[in-house]
Amino acid sequence: MRTLEPPHLRLLRLLRDQGAVSRAELADRLEMPRPRLLAEVERLVGAGYAAEAGLAASRGGRRSTLVELSPKLRLGAVDLGVTSIDIEVTNGRLEPLAAYSEPADIRQGPKAILHRVTELLAKAKVDGAYERLDAIGIGVPGPVSFRDGVPVSPPIMPGWDRFPVRELLTRELGCPAVVDNDVNIMAVGERHGGVAHSVDDFLYVKIGTGIGCGIYLSGEVYRGTDGCAGDIGHIQVDTHGPVCSCGNVGCLEALFSGAALAKDALAAARSGGSPALAERLANAGTVTARDVAQGAMEGDVTCIRLIRDGGRQVGAVLAGLVSFANPSMIVIGGGLAQLGHILLAEIRSVVYRRSLPLATGNLPVVLSELGPRAGVAGAAVLASDLAFEQAS
Amino acid sequence: MRTLEPPHLRLLRLLRDQGAVSRAELADRLEMPRPRLLAEVERLVGAGYAAEAGLAASRGGRRSTLVELSPKLRLGAVDLGVTSIDIEVTNGRLEPLAAYSEPADIRQGPKAILHRVTELLAKAKVDGAYERLDAIGIGVPGPVSFRDGVPVSPPIMPGWDRFPVRELLTRELGCPAVVDNDVNIMAVGERHGGVAHSVDDFLYVKIGTGIGCGIYLSGEVYRGTDGCAGDIGHIQVDTHGPVCSCGNVGCLEALFSGAALAKDALAAARSGGSPALAERLANAGTVTARDVAQGAMEGDVTCIRLIRDGGRQVGAVLAGLVSFANPSMIVIGGGLAQLGHILLAEIRSVVYRRSLPLATGNLPVVLSELGPRAGVAGAAVLASDLAFEQAS
Repeated sequence: MRTLEPPHLRLLRLLRDQGAVSRAELADRLEMPRPRLLAEVERLVGAGYAAEAGLAASRGGRRSTLVELSPKLRLGAVDLGVTSIDIEVTNGRLEPLAAYSEPADIRQGPKAILHRVTELLAKAKVDGAYERLDAIGIGVPGPVSFRDGVPVSPPIMPGWDRFPVRELLTRELGCPAVVDNDVNIMAVGERHGGVAHSVDDFLYVKIGTGIGCGIYLSGEVYRGTDGCAGDIGHIQVDTHGPVCSCGNVGCLEALFSGAALAKDALAAARSGGSPALAERLANAGTVTARDVAQGAMEGDVTCIRLIRDGGRQVGAVLAGLVSFANPSMIVIGGGLAQLGHILLAEIRSVVYRRSLPLATGNLPVVLSELGPRAGVAGAAVLASDLAFEQAS
Repeated sequence: MRTLEPPHLRLLRLLRDQGAVSRAELADRLEMPRPRLLAEVERLVGAGYAAEAGLAASRGGRRSTLVELSPKLRLGAVDLGVTSIDIEVTNGRLEPLAAYSEPADIRQGPKAILHRVTELLAKAKVDGAYERLDAIGIGVPGPVSFRDGVPVSPPIMPGWDRFPVRELLTRELGCPAVVDNDVNIMAVGERHGGVAHSVDDFLYVKIGTGIGCGIYLSGEVYRGTDGCAGDIGHIQVDTHGPVCSCGNVGCLEALFSGAALAKDALAAARSGGSPALAERLANAGTVTARDVAQGAMEGDVTCIRLIRDGGRQVGAVLAGLVSFANPSMIVIGGGLAQLGHILLAEIRSVVYRRSLPLATGNLPVVLSELGPRAGVAGAAVLASDLAFEQAS
């Protein structure tokens, strides 16, 4: 049994998501007695979180005055990938005021990568995006202790284990920070402003270099006992499958992911099985998942088969997770979501065939709406929640 | 972000789990200002939920008076299995005052089965276990809409789909009722009074006629969008496996469950592969999972192999679920838990080998402590929570 969140948090979130709202409507929406609401608004205006925004349209009688989030609020949002840094600075309504993306190698270690993050944020400051940040949210490609704000035993992030990411950012940027797993922040982004808007129980499946899953249960991100919930890339789908980077055999990731698909595409190009991929290999010297997507769009049967095979593997794992978790939506994101509807159709087909009818009777399996922006969008949401919590 | 539950609920639960407690200690434990606590206790005594229980031992100064749950509180707890009815009537502290168990066939339909439930409860009344019930909790072997108090599309319960179980029991017994899935109530029981005591994130895996999973996440039972979360018996473990009752191929249940094991045992007895099982078949005309357990204890290699094979199948599914949910404990219960440590060792071996090291670094895989009583114990817990909620 849960009870409601603190009123200031609900109020500030409402202003974040709705923009300027009249005091009268705020009192209605938050089901707060009007005197208490007025006092709370006054307090939040005084503390610099909210601001007056003119008069509302008349509802009959005296016109109520509008309230909005302080236009001075500024949030930092960072999405660290295995090979990329994406940064946005937003206002309180999560509208981007500055954005930077560049390639990076997470294996350079926390000091080099986080130094670059602070450099990019300094650049945003010089460019006029902010004077000071109210909070920062950051996602990293590995398990995270959400409570401690540190990565925990991340398999592909050498040097990052228990590195005090939150502490360093707080010190360098002079504002509170929140650290989460990269797939979790994508799920948060997709729920706030994407296809999973307001859906309480859903799985966000990222298929990129590796495969991971963000889990929303009962309206909250579920992170697990050690912060590694959703690590579905190493679920076994074929006991006779290829050896995975983790040392086990037949993991989902070893069968289908950006890396596995590129390998299969190269083999198909060399064997002559795919004219489309052979041509791309000859022209560019290499083939990627993007070439497979392009080949499939042009009708290359090998490319279509590679995508279908992958969809079947992903579908097999998701069918089990649907039986287990009975979610109300599955969102497919990450780089390989570009494989689009052929991939989606195959995943759906396996999930609908393999799971309990009750669980799939009304289960949309859909592509991410936010695409590559899901991560920074979610990091901004977490940052705003953190900033709003300070207003207690 | 969750806030605390209502004070009366926390107070009554504390009395349920601790027995008589002094007002001073209650104020400390619930972190309530003393005047507010005293008023709340007085209200609950007046409403018949709590009672005076004499003077506490001195803590220096004036002696505080003890409070306990009203000794008149009575709860009904019912666990409907596919082939059994188990009923207990307990006091507010969940101590059984009467218990009945008898074979039954869930396929007789809701009217016949629930009529027998009310007959057994009437018998308990005649036997003096209660004058009136404050609440009743019931578990059924299928998916349940917890909110509506009805089974939903239960595959092995013909006639029960959307039957108003809660409404009928409320009317017949004159008290509020709560309906849940049978595996969920076992998980609730094991968390309240068994091996998972106070563990917030764990999986309770019932291996009986079929296989199901109760899911505790963040300290609450997770039931899924349609009430069918935990239906892990139909997760595919072998694409070339036997056809399951659900129509799919290679489901966990088709490979290992009470029914599957009995079938395999019969084959082993007939083929002469197992002297122990052949002898039992000759003597009794049939062999069961219990015979396999007995044969294994006597060192019959075929019986041991059957259990190990089954453990490997269960382990393969659980390894995936550990990667997904990152729980802090797995509890194995249900009839086949009698296969004991050979089964457990094999499950552990697969889970520890196949899941992410971070997720298994500290992951006990243990047998249920409450055994066949887990279900009624959990139903009593749910009934008590429901009774306490009425005290608002």
